[in-house]
Amino acid sequence: MTGYSSPIKSLIDKFSKLPGIGGRSAQRLAFHIIKMSVAEVEEFAKAIVDAKKQIKYCSVCCNYTDKDICPICLSEFRNKKSIMVVEEPKDMSAYEKTRQYKGVYHILHGSISPMNNITPSDIKIKELLSRISVSDPPDEIILATNATVEGEATAMYIAKLIKPLGIKVTRIANGVPIGSDLEYIDEITLFRALEGRLEM
Amino acid sequence: MTGYSSPIKSLIDKFSKLPGIGGRSAQRLAFHIIKMSVAEVEEFAKAIVDAKKQIKYCSVCCNYTDKDICPICLSEFRNKKSIMVVEEPKDMSAYEKTRQYKGVYHILHGSISPMNNITPSDIKIKELLSRISVSDPPDEIILATNATVEGEATAMYIAKLIKPLGIKVTRIANGVPIGSDLEYIDEITLFRALEGRLEM
Repeated sequence: MTGYSSPIKSLIDKFSKLPGIGGRSAQRLAFHIIKMSVAEVEEFAKAIVDAKKQIKYCSVCCNYTDKDICPICLSEFRNKKSIMVVEEPKDMSAYEKTRQYKGVYHILHGSISPMNNITPSDIKIKELLSRISVSDPPDEIILATNATVEGEATAMYIAKLIKPLGIKVTRIANGVPIGSDLEYIDEITLFRALEGRLEM
Repeated sequence: MTGYSSPIKSLIDKFSKLPGIGGRSAQRLAFHIIKMSVAEVEEFAKAIVDAKKQIKYCSVCCNYTDKDICPICLSEFRNKKSIMVVEEPKDMSAYEKTRQYKGVYHILHGSISPMNNITPSDIKIKELLSRISVSDPPDEIILATNATVEGEATAMYIAKLIKPLGIKVTRIANGVPIGSDLEYIDEITLFRALEGRLEM
């Protein structure tokens, strides 16, 4: 950042602390800001502060929302008896894009990861338990955590807690992604795809 | 962005309009903002607005600065008789990192590009001319625009304007970058590296 004046240095520095933004991207973003109009820049800054200040957890599913309960949990068209457990809001959004899932969600905001010092109490598992331990339990809990070591461990941990309650617990399937050549798919996935084969 | 509440949608939307930020990065940035503290977020928003409002062009070299004249142009340790012409502030910063150049700069803020409708009058060429047409002309103008079609065209255009004034005009060398294997270097670069060979 040699040769830049201090407001630019400060902005580049702040951009470069964001996830996935390296030094060069931070420079490009800062110069883009300089080239925007003052009105656009002020609107952008306001959107940042507003999002931070207005967003909280949905008191039911822990999704981010600016209301007490999020629109999905409030919707009368969603089946409250089916709860899909995901790691992050972006995973919920990915499933919403399929337009096929009509149940509700529970967002953990992370996954169990002893390597990163993230224990079950650091993610929204107790909120899930208190949600389903009511007089009107769900029909099914679908574990849709990632197919990573942490996601699998989290799914297993939650399954162990919930199965004794007599609630059906399922896990989304592993398999070959649509459009993929088998030759590029790893062996574990191919094995899981075989195991999970369905009659045609 | 399905399933997100409006302050998040609005922020993701604003992030995704920044250069080099796609939909997924915009989501990740927005969620990062939500996870920052209110104080950090407000400071970030302020840095954005401050940079925009406080930054203007240096009245000498057109670098971005919060003063009337930038620190490089003001410095008594820099040789004002040598002017390096670059396309963007980041190019100036790249040369500053070498710590070898002791002259001053002129920042064009772009390059001539008929394809993108950028003509000589859209970049800071007239500012360069009025800067050197004074009673005390520089000893050398070093053209350090990029080694692209646009950068070359811009360098040629400026050279044609300045050479008749009797000022020495040079162009930075093309050649093999340090650390590169010759086999991965294109033919034009190899040819230029041969042309520009220096006695050892």
